[in-house]
Amino acid sequence: MTTQNSVQKIIFDTDPGIDDAMALLFIEASPALDLVAVTTVFGNADIDTTTRNALYLKDRFGLKAPVFKGTDKPLVRPRNPSPTFVHGENGLGDVELTGLKPAQPEARPAYQAIIDLARENPGEITLVAVGPLTNLALALDADPQVATLLKAVVIMGGAFGVAGKPGNVTPVAEANIWNDPEAADQVFTAPWPVTAVSLDVTTQVVMTPAYMDALEAKAGPAGAFLNAISKPYAAFYGGRDGIIGCCVHDAAAVAFVIDPSLFEVRRGSIRVITDGIALGQTCQKVEGELFGPSAWDDQPIQAITVGVKAEGLLKLYAETMGV
Amino acid sequence: MTTQNSVQKIIFDTDPGIDDAMALLFIEASPALDLVAVTTVFGNADIDTTTRNALYLKDRFGLKAPVFKGTDKPLVRPRNPSPTFVHGENGLGDVELTGLKPAQPEARPAYQAIIDLARENPGEITLVAVGPLTNLALALDADPQVATLLKAVVIMGGAFGVAGKPGNVTPVAEANIWNDPEAADQVFTAPWPVTAVSLDVTTQVVMTPAYMDALEAKAGPAGAFLNAISKPYAAFYGGRDGIIGCCVHDAAAVAFVIDPSLFEVRRGSIRVITDGIALGQTCQKVEGELFGPSAWDDQPIQAITVGVKAEGLLKLYAETMGV
Repeated sequence: MTTQNSVQKIIFDTDPGIDDAMALLFIEASPALDLVAVTTVFGNADIDTTTRNALYLKDRFGLKAPVFKGTDKPLVRPRNPSPTFVHGENGLGDVELTGLKPAQPEARPAYQAIIDLARENPGEITLVAVGPLTNLALALDADPQVATLLKAVVIMGGAFGVAGKPGNVTPVAEANIWNDPEAADQVFTAPWPVTAVSLDVTTQVVMTPAYMDALEAKAGPAGAFLNAISKPYAAFYGGRDGIIGCCVHDAAAVAFVIDPSLFEVRRGSIRVITDGIALGQTCQKVEGELFGPSAWDDQPIQAITVGVKAEGLLKLYAETMGV
Repeated sequence: MTTQNSVQKIIFDTDPGIDDAMALLFIEASPALDLVAVTTVFGNADIDTTTRNALYLKDRFGLKAPVFKGTDKPLVRPRNPSPTFVHGENGLGDVELTGLKPAQPEARPAYQAIIDLARENPGEITLVAVGPLTNLALALDADPQVATLLKAVVIMGGAFGVAGKPGNVTPVAEANIWNDPEAADQVFTAPWPVTAVSLDVTTQVVMTPAYMDALEAKAGPAGAFLNAISKPYAAFYGGRDGIIGCCVHDAAAVAFVIDPSLFEVRRGSIRVITDGIALGQTCQKVEGELFGPSAWDDQPIQAITVGVKAEGLLKLYAETMGV
């Protein structure tokens, strides 16, 4: 099921979020991954809601990893309205959160937890970030050396126009990047190895209602919960671009960590558009291509995903969850 | 050879330019096209050089169409340096312009000629523009009705990231658009039907040295001249992206007018990025796709080319030239 030889330590930076919950339970179920911390961020809902949801998921599904609360707004701009038409008012498809108990996150802020864990486990932690990249930028600001202390950064975000695929909030921008373009540009141009698992591939991986029913039937309480929260999410996608079911956005970034051979990647420097009508667009200068001087010159070479084995990814997810 | 029923009247807006010369002689040779005027613009060289080259080609190859001199600079910004490393100091690969005679363009400026010809031939003229789009924007400024009086506008320009193809001056921008982004945005958002034959397809159509030799052998004086000017152009492309020969940029826009069935098109509103690091990037919102509010809303639906039958295009060009 995995091409890795040892268990990988994961910090999961997340804004749950329906597909965030799918990804979080995937990490927890995977024998290849060791979840050492959950860090929250605004995005699919406000920070209080996404943190409450992370704590709820920890309690309901018995996660050991601590939850650190992250930032409530982008680096330099006001927060965009929450996409309640996708993730519901409660961030989890407005499914009733049964047995909800009051709980508090850890005392330290998310960016500090990222720094501390990186320093305590140098070269060992993969940071999987599936919301706006604000916590990561704050960590870089507070301690630039963090860029050399993580094993890798894998994000779900961006839309690179591969195969003509567009953005999802504007014709050119994907929501996670658009929600904090300055933070994303900082993350892509820092000297840590970043892989962007982007809309170009995540829109190719769809969990159908039948797939979700199989999860409910065979994957225990997690499967039933995932099926329940997926229904409003699938309703959002229903009729758009002929997709019947749920695009697997955030869980695709997790799948990349478990088995990168499921993806085709393209290397090159990446910049984010931080002004004008293309705000939040991600653009890659492919490694080795020659142009006149541009803002892509002398930046770290990062990776984007340009192809995915969709059936293989869906099989990995289902098997990991126990189907 | 053509899917059109009648001869089409053409205004050719051009900055010769090696591939401009290839396109101009293609128009002149085509029985499907009637060249009614050549309008010049800065771009591959300064305006005096491109106009001199247009007049030279008219004299050397006996073109009947008058030449109107266009603008020497972009609408609002300083002119970029001429790409002498592509088109040579003289704009035609530094091939000696044998028998060069002093000649003057017509008295009226290019944008006025476009307006006047459109008014004299309402609904009949296709404007093929293969340089910066400044003359077209000036015509729209001076007489907005010109947008309703042309049959169509077909440009060579833009890079839409289809199949991961990049720009040619920056990772995201194509030279014609980058040379006057404000003019291009005005042209794409005017209510005339525009088709952008972009780098996404033109880089797929390559005239090899053997192809050019066949032109020299069989296409008379035009063939010999085209082979001569193509050599420095092919040298520029040599080693880039594995291309051996000349990318057929400008002549591809002409081929679209003669036989649009050679191309696959995609419809949607188009905006040009006019500030920041993505200056000159062209982005299309595909018709029917839904996003939040964006600068692409309520703009005219235009077409871009997303596929090309390269062999068919090369055959059309060769047969038209007499090979």
